[in-house]
Amino acid sequence: MTVDTVNDDAPGPAELPPGMLSGLRVLDLSRIFAGPAATQVLGDLGAEVIKVEDPTGDGSRRLGASEERMRRMGGTSPAYLAFNRNKRSIVLDLHVASARAVVKRIAATVDVMVHNFRPGVVERWGLDHAAVAKDNPRLVYAEFSAYGTRGAMARVGANDVAVQAYSGLISATGNKGEPPVRCGTAVVDMQGSLALVGGILGALYHRERTGRGQRVSSSLLASAAHLMGYVYADYWADGTVAEPLGTANTLNVPNQAFPAADGSVIIIASGDDMWARCADALDPARLNRPEYQRSFDRLLKRDTLVPEISAVTRRFTCAELVERLEAVRVSVAKVNSVAEAADSEQLTANGGWVSLGDDQPLQRAVSSPFELSESPVRVRRPPPRLGEHAEAILGEAGYAAEEIAALRAEGALG
Amino acid sequence: MTVDTVNDDAPGPAELPPGMLSGLRVLDLSRIFAGPAATQVLGDLGAEVIKVEDPTGDGSRRLGASEERMRRMGGTSPAYLAFNRNKRSIVLDLHVASARAVVKRIAATVDVMVHNFRPGVVERWGLDHAAVAKDNPRLVYAEFSAYGTRGAMARVGANDVAVQAYSGLISATGNKGEPPVRCGTAVVDMQGSLALVGGILGALYHRERTGRGQRVSSSLLASAAHLMGYVYADYWADGTVAEPLGTANTLNVPNQAFPAADGSVIIIASGDDMWARCADALDPARLNRPEYQRSFDRLLKRDTLVPEISAVTRRFTCAELVERLEAVRVSVAKVNSVAEAADSEQLTANGGWVSLGDDQPLQRAVSSPFELSESPVRVRRPPPRLGEHAEAILGEAGYAAEEIAALRAEGALG
Repeated sequence: MTVDTVNDDAPGPAELPPGMLSGLRVLDLSRIFAGPAATQVLGDLGAEVIKVEDPTGDGSRRLGASEERMRRMGGTSPAYLAFNRNKRSIVLDLHVASARAVVKRIAATVDVMVHNFRPGVVERWGLDHAAVAKDNPRLVYAEFSAYGTRGAMARVGANDVAVQAYSGLISATGNKGEPPVRCGTAVVDMQGSLALVGGILGALYHRERTGRGQRVSSSLLASAAHLMGYVYADYWADGTVAEPLGTANTLNVPNQAFPAADGSVIIIASGDDMWARCADALDPARLNRPEYQRSFDRLLKRDTLVPEISAVTRRFTCAELVERLEAVRVSVAKVNSVAEAADSEQLTANGGWVSLGDDQPLQRAVSSPFELSESPVRVRRPPPRLGEHAEAILGEAGYAAEEIAALRAEGALG
Repeated sequence: MTVDTVNDDAPGPAELPPGMLSGLRVLDLSRIFAGPAATQVLGDLGAEVIKVEDPTGDGSRRLGASEERMRRMGGTSPAYLAFNRNKRSIVLDLHVASARAVVKRIAATVDVMVHNFRPGVVERWGLDHAAVAKDNPRLVYAEFSAYGTRGAMARVGANDVAVQAYSGLISATGNKGEPPVRCGTAVVDMQGSLALVGGILGALYHRERTGRGQRVSSSLLASAAHLMGYVYADYWADGTVAEPLGTANTLNVPNQAFPAADGSVIIIASGDDMWARCADALDPARLNRPEYQRSFDRLLKRDTLVPEISAVTRRFTCAELVERLEAVRVSVAKVNSVAEAADSEQLTANGGWVSLGDDQPLQRAVSSPFELSESPVRVRRPPPRLGEHAEAILGEAGYAAEEIAALRAEGALG
């Protein structure tokens, strides 16, 4: 992949081909994480994304942890800046009829529309799929809900951690007998973002072949269930209910974190050959014993084997354990802090982040999670200020200056 | 979406349109979770997926937790069955030259090829992108690695939990001061699966417009970084390093699990209005107090507010808390067990699982995480037995009976 980080609208260097979605227009009414993270991937692929915000702005702008920090960041949280590059912003107060008319007019001209209003809201506003597809049958209309659009909970709102709880993910995370623990990032939102990306790109492929758009739906519920796929399968197979096991799992031993002199490392030696190499590399006399040779035996003897391994690993530093075990092709990884992970050379070597510009409050952000050999990713725009591009967007949609003034007078633009 | 669960190759009912990817052929050499979960989504959309396994089979077949359980399941683990419907299986021992020739021959005829061998392996085997694209320039060639294909760690192997550790996710999960904790499911693998789906569908869209295939790359590293997007942003912004906070986060209070009389519920009341409604619904005298009215104040007073709320929530059951708080539109969710989640009516109401067939060892599995209004999802085949379709696949690739016999004699078919 070619990563280019030009921060303006000028065309890139001549040798850089256009993005895969160059020329495609996306109207994004979604808020917080899953939707904006999805449309950012589309923007990274070259699409032009119009971000519609209510007068107070996407709620993620305010997730700044403290007032003082928000001031330092220029009023906008890192969480917003992480997911909103390659977009332009317009404020529309959808409680005002003329603002809804603006959405409808723009929706008639775009390729993709995304929203995450609760089921029922877009119908009330005349912005549901049937209403907007009438004027634009090629539109790919993507909607993201909390608990799906059917069933008793369809209109219940939720965020990532609520669905981590509802899906059983929290119940399978943590140390047994201790207070519940969530995954340390919004895994359901992020899985949802890629579910939307997959559905939208699939629908665009289908449109290319048939000429027709369609509705794409996903939800926190469906995304969490997908994350839990093999865990639910264990239950559906014979009632096996996953329980929290720290960093371990029920499938093989060792496959978890072990203490080092200066931190922890994950050691995975599931196959019998790999276990033998692991035992020999650490302390053959103590670990390479007949009762631990077979994988099913190691599972049964977890309660003695794990303390045995721990007693050995404590004698080494993380770096020593990584070096020793990598040398014999045993899977090993240091439990990094967020700082070590974000700064890692390996992430940089693989284009894991893009530059948002040296003049920006957040100067780098994580890349989209896949690369395409023929489609460059380019940061064409840093995350927009609230309503920064209202005039330009309305102008392109055919609104004359006096019409824009009228919208403003009515409060449609916040 | 129309969900149909016909378990044979007969065409579906006349009113059911063909899947979005009907007619598309996928050659899948990937193992364990991310790759197989990705190709299962393609299969759900109608693609024909050829699963190539080494003589011992996809390692996920053996993740059955115990020998006795494996026997009961007919020799194949629920984890394998969760991610391999809508595929046919052929065993090819790629250490045998004629087996590699079979892959190359089939690769020349398919639309998509997927693998997750370590960087360098496919080059050694003559199955790298350049080699197979020569005969098939329309091929979408998807590769999935552990730590990416560049940098010092490119050839280091890893699994989900190793990269949960490397990416800092484990360091941000758990209760502070306690032993490290992983997310209770393979979140990095599953995020990786959807990264692959997005990249492949994007490349198919691009091929439809240009006639050309390309290489798609993703990795556990890139997928984990994407999961951690806003967490890294916090660090890159001003050095803020996320630490484990149980079910809480640094952004707002209350937004975490609270104890009930019979379990725990997540309560999220981040906005000031929502907090006022929450406080009034639970115990206005105790909770609706001036010092807790503003969100930044609630953050600062976390250490007194959380115990205050907990003292109140303990007086109610989970069901009472859910009912009381939903009634005033406060986000609330019970911390479900895996059994409660997998059996939930809401999941069923939203097509959250598909039937694999009543005669199968695993009778249901989680659906793909997005729905398309014009593209039905159909379980055409239950997960295949190891090598079940070798003859048919080779026959379709033009191998005559005597050639197949010769391959078998050479050990190419395991």
